[in-house]
Amino acid sequence: MDYQKILEDIEQEVKPMLLEGKVADYIPALAGIDPEQFAMSITLFDGTQYSVGKSEKLFSIQSISKVFTYTLALKFYSEEFYGRVGHEPSGDPFNSLVQLEYENGVPRNPFINAGAINVTDALITHYGSSKSAYNHIIEFIRSIADEEEIYLDKAVSISEMEKGYRNISLASLMKSFDNLDNSVLDVVQTYFNHCSIEMNTQMLSRAMLYLANHGLDPVTNKAYISPPQAKRINAVMLTCGHYDASGDFAYNVGLPGKSGVGGGIVAIVPGKMAISVWSPGLNAQGNSLVGTKALELFTTKTGLSIF
Amino acid sequence: MDYQKILEDIEQEVKPMLLEGKVADYIPALAGIDPEQFAMSITLFDGTQYSVGKSEKLFSIQSISKVFTYTLALKFYSEEFYGRVGHEPSGDPFNSLVQLEYENGVPRNPFINAGAINVTDALITHYGSSKSAYNHIIEFIRSIADEEEIYLDKAVSISEMEKGYRNISLASLMKSFDNLDNSVLDVVQTYFNHCSIEMNTQMLSRAMLYLANHGLDPVTNKAYISPPQAKRINAVMLTCGHYDASGDFAYNVGLPGKSGVGGGIVAIVPGKMAISVWSPGLNAQGNSLVGTKALELFTTKTGLSIF
Amino acid sequence: MDYQKILEDIEQEVKPMLLEGKVADYIPALAGIDPEQFAMSITLFDGTQYSVGKSEKLFSIQSISKVFTYTLALKFYSEEFYGRVGHEPSGDPFNSLVQLEYENGVPRNPFINAGAINVTDALITHYGSSKSAYNHIIEFIRSIADEEEIYLDKAVSISEMEKGYRNISLASLMKSFDNLDNSVLDVVQTYFNHCSIEMNTQMLSRAMLYLANHGLDPVTNKAYISPPQAKRINAVMLTCGHYDASGDFAYNVGLPGKSGVGGGIVAIVPGKMAISVWSPGLNAQGNSLVGTKALELFTTKTGLSIF
Amino acid sequence: MDYQKILEDIEQEVKPMLLEGKVADYIPALAGIDPEQFAMSITLFDGTQYSVGKSEKLFSIQSISKVFTYTLALKFYSEEFYGRVGHEPSGDPFNSLVQLEYENGVPRNPFINAGAINVTDALITHYGSSKSAYNHIIEFIRSIADEEEIYLDKAVSISEMEKGYRNISLASLMKSFDNLDNSVLDVVQTYFNHCSIEMNTQMLSRAMLYLANHGLDPVTNKAYISPPQAKRINAVMLTCGHYDASGDFAYNVGLPGKSGVGGGIVAIVPGKMAISVWSPGLNAQGNSLVGTKALELFTTKTGLSIF
Repeated sequence: MDYQKILEDIEQEVKPMLLEGKVADYIPALAGIDPEQFAMSITLFDGTQYSVGKSEKLFSIQSISKVFTYTLALKFYSEEFYGRVGHEPSGDPFNSLVQLEYENGVPRNPFINAGAINVTDALITHYGSSKSAYNHIIEFIRSIADEEEIYLDKAVSISEMEKGYRNISLASLMKSFDNLDNSVLDVVQTYFNHCSIEMNTQMLSRAMLYLANHGLDPVTNKAYISPPQAKRINAVMLTCGHYDASGDFAYNVGLPGKSGVGGGIVAIVPGKMAISVWSPGLNAQGNSLVGTKALELFTTKTGLSIF
Repeated sequence: MDYQKILEDIEQEVKPMLLEGKVADYIPALAGIDPEQFAMSITLFDGTQYSVGKSEKLFSIQSISKVFTYTLALKFYSEEFYGRVGHEPSGDPFNSLVQLEYENGVPRNPFINAGAINVTDALITHYGSSKSAYNHIIEFIRSIADEEEIYLDKAVSISEMEKGYRNISLASLMKSFDNLDNSVLDVVQTYFNHCSIEMNTQMLSRAMLYLANHGLDPVTNKAYISPPQAKRINAVMLTCGHYDASGDFAYNVGLPGKSGVGGGIVAIVPGKMAISVWSPGLNAQGNSLVGTKALELFTTKTGLSIF
Repeated sequence: MDYQKILEDIEQEVKPMLLEGKVADYIPALAGIDPEQFAMSITLFDGTQYSVGKSEKLFSIQSISKVFTYTLALKFYSEEFYGRVGHEPSGDPFNSLVQLEYENGVPRNPFINAGAINVTDALITHYGSSKSAYNHIIEFIRSIADEEEIYLDKAVSISEMEKGYRNISLASLMKSFDNLDNSVLDVVQTYFNHCSIEMNTQMLSRAMLYLANHGLDPVTNKAYISPPQAKRINAVMLTCGHYDASGDFAYNVGLPGKSGVGGGIVAIVPGKMAISVWSPGLNAQGNSLVGTKALELFTTKTGLSIF
Repeated sequence: MDYQKILEDIEQEVKPMLLEGKVADYIPALAGIDPEQFAMSITLFDGTQYSVGKSEKLFSIQSISKVFTYTLALKFYSEEFYGRVGHEPSGDPFNSLVQLEYENGVPRNPFINAGAINVTDALITHYGSSKSAYNHIIEFIRSIADEEEIYLDKAVSISEMEKGYRNISLASLMKSFDNLDNSVLDVVQTYFNHCSIEMNTQMLSRAMLYLANHGLDPVTNKAYISPPQAKRINAVMLTCGHYDASGDFAYNVGLPGKSGVGGGIVAIVPGKMAISVWSPGLNAQGNSLVGTKALELFTTKTGLSIF
């Protein structure tokens, strides 16, 4: 298949939609971003990469980081971890407290905010401090992306913490149910730190390759996690990766994927490749509007859905 | 792969668990079933079938019928249908009214009770009467199963209707939101009728083959639905096929599937085969306990997950 | 106090607000009513009556009938009745299913629809048939109003039944929890029948006198219920009589009262009098907008609040 | 009436029930309290006081302080205050986040935790600092109790703050909806401070007298609030004073009142007296079990219900 041509066709088709989305404005440091931007990259198992648009432009990965922290947590925690965080779709918005209260402080899955905060807490406990946890997270991301030059945007992280009362509320509620080990503010700050890491679509499509290949990076042959663990992360991405539009994404795109409010989305085609797309305008559920459309066009044009 | 050997190994492994599940007791006609029963069948694209256990024993397909009625509805209704029934996981039990009220009578997906009742209503409207709708449903099932001798168990249907107040409540609530065309009692009775159809695992694994092959039966070459429609049904099975244990099923089994409270489960391996398993004892979420375990063993032993 | 003057002053003050409310339009037979109507009556313990406006004009008492059916139910059922219907404010709209599902089919109180339907069911069981129950209800109302000429408007009752899916849904849900003895349609029809009884403010203020006097009619000396029972009904009127505006009514008016979507409200001043007001335009919570204001003016002008 | 005799009779009747309640154990500093304690006091308009039991023993007033902070807030804030905190019963437990999230951070009433925290926030804003707010709160309480020797138990306040994650979660959620002016931790600490004030039943029955007399202390003739404000506070006590047992209290006792998890309850008989009762064992809804029973006996024996 001529992937470069397919990506270029997609770019042409989605261009007229670039102004339909709405940039996330609750994070002041992200609110000013020009919505008329687009990038898409795919990385094959031999490392070959195809890209269109601003594929070198860095953006805030936001909730995409939850895939990486969940991967790290699965490495260290065995089954008893699942008493802390479930793996069911929530049916509620990403930051809802309702279900968390009804279910006694156990988040439905690691990709809603409460779940990701809880995973961050588990990593802090495992690594002994929030500083050490953050360092291991970013080193892990650099390793899977095969790229040293990945950093957080501290201004975004600070900006998020200043407006972070909803997440502090979620963390405090888990703490009240004895489902959080460390200090609320420490955990939430670390969570915002890894959300504020900046990458581009080239890096992200490279970084996701291990999940398309049973946990083993097909380029470097590094085994990050076991095949059952990779299968599980992919299953959770498919059922829970796009908040209360996860069914929509499975239905229209048909690939395991994860979005972030920075406008990025990652997805994998098992056994074949990893994909990343970016466009800052969001749809009503908080996922990149043009990014979702681009992935839908990709699976339609290539027939590469898992279904 | 020696599928017969794999099925036999699975049968041995699950046998000790047969008494752990709990037979659905809210339908009197089903309550008396011996829980110590098990059957599993797979059907390949060339029609070859492998089975273990009581694979010729008929059982009530119950909610598995929702896959077939949804298929029929997709044939006749275009996008505007989706204003009637969504395709998102619900995060709530299969018969909950809470979400249905909050969301103004539009069921989350076609596999929770409210959604399936609504699909049945759409088929009654399309076919002009409940009798005609039921006839088309059972003829469709006979066609995809390539088997004429399929009937409903009228005693089960009557028994369900007598205890059907929860479903009547769901249908009445949709009617109060103008999201039901026909008479409440007529729709619910038709719904119970197709739930009370009896099949065995041989028939069911045969019947599901079209969904493993983009809507086209690979044995008879009959095209039932379009490839995008097949993809969509599979996506909804994966995200919503097992009520509030759908994430669990995706996580542990990794195949699109659908369960029924009669103890049956169907699943497909895209491009390869369809599977059916039966064991009447249910787990806490209302899915066959041993059936779920058997499918998990199957994907572990064969590596045939979609992830 | 010159009650006639006070009522006349109130009438002048509320006149400009008559068009601010919205007539209940979900009951076709009520939708056509002219909103620019007002009536108010008070009845003292010696039977003296003061009225302004259209105090002889009959209107549909609707939910005010719930006070009378609850009174009858308390006569026949002792404490074990309270396992069927609670007496707590619901915090939800009058016809919500959410709480009813969470609380296993036991309505919060006898004045939300589910509770009143349940009380009607209890009366049908007690009197042996829906016909007999209805006859006893209307005879009771005629007795406390000391007026034979009280009838139901059958057209309203039929009109409500045709649109009664929400109430059928509530009744079916209770039936699914084994908290309804009789046939859903029979109970709901009887419920709509007593809601469709027509009275005027003169009759209603006369009828409520027994609740202002510990259960004993001060004019006829008939004892309808015991003092503790009267106290309880008044307490439930105060905390639950105006759906999710009950706090508002207690806060602004400060009297036990009950409203109906026909635009009527009844209230009592313990030890002194009973009041009824009518104006068909409703506020956002479904209570008579001008009626509520008139009662607030009454307690402000007379100081006759219970607080 | 021989009030002393009535109180003594009540004391005898409730004694056998003293071990049925359960001391609040989520506040470590309160968990050790001997449940077999009881006190009851009434104060008449001329200042005469009748008491039985340990009426001089100090206890933590906890949520009873919400009556006093709400009184202060009503003094300074006019109608626009009600956009911050409502006055409807909540139908949910005292510390639930569910309703607060659905209703965009506006607490249902000033007596659930979220509402009381919001009132505390308003007082901090009004008085300029948390220290000043606390000082005005305790000075107000000393004034209405006509007693200088009233202090907080700092150990209880610290103990509550250490376990205060649920309240921090509530406050953070309100802050995320822009319905909290000051720092979350500052507001919650101030809230715990006024909850930790210690009083006895003699002081409390004296302190509530202004609410039984339209806002005017009948002994000192000091006017604390206007008659409409007093009426409103009493209405909110009646409909919301006992969390999700408010209907129960209105039904069984029939007086405006407020309870605290320290085991204290206050109530007023409009135009006549104020009452306080204390017994540390709580019922399932978190109200003093014996205290509630004692008040019920009091209104039964004296006929002094408002209904």
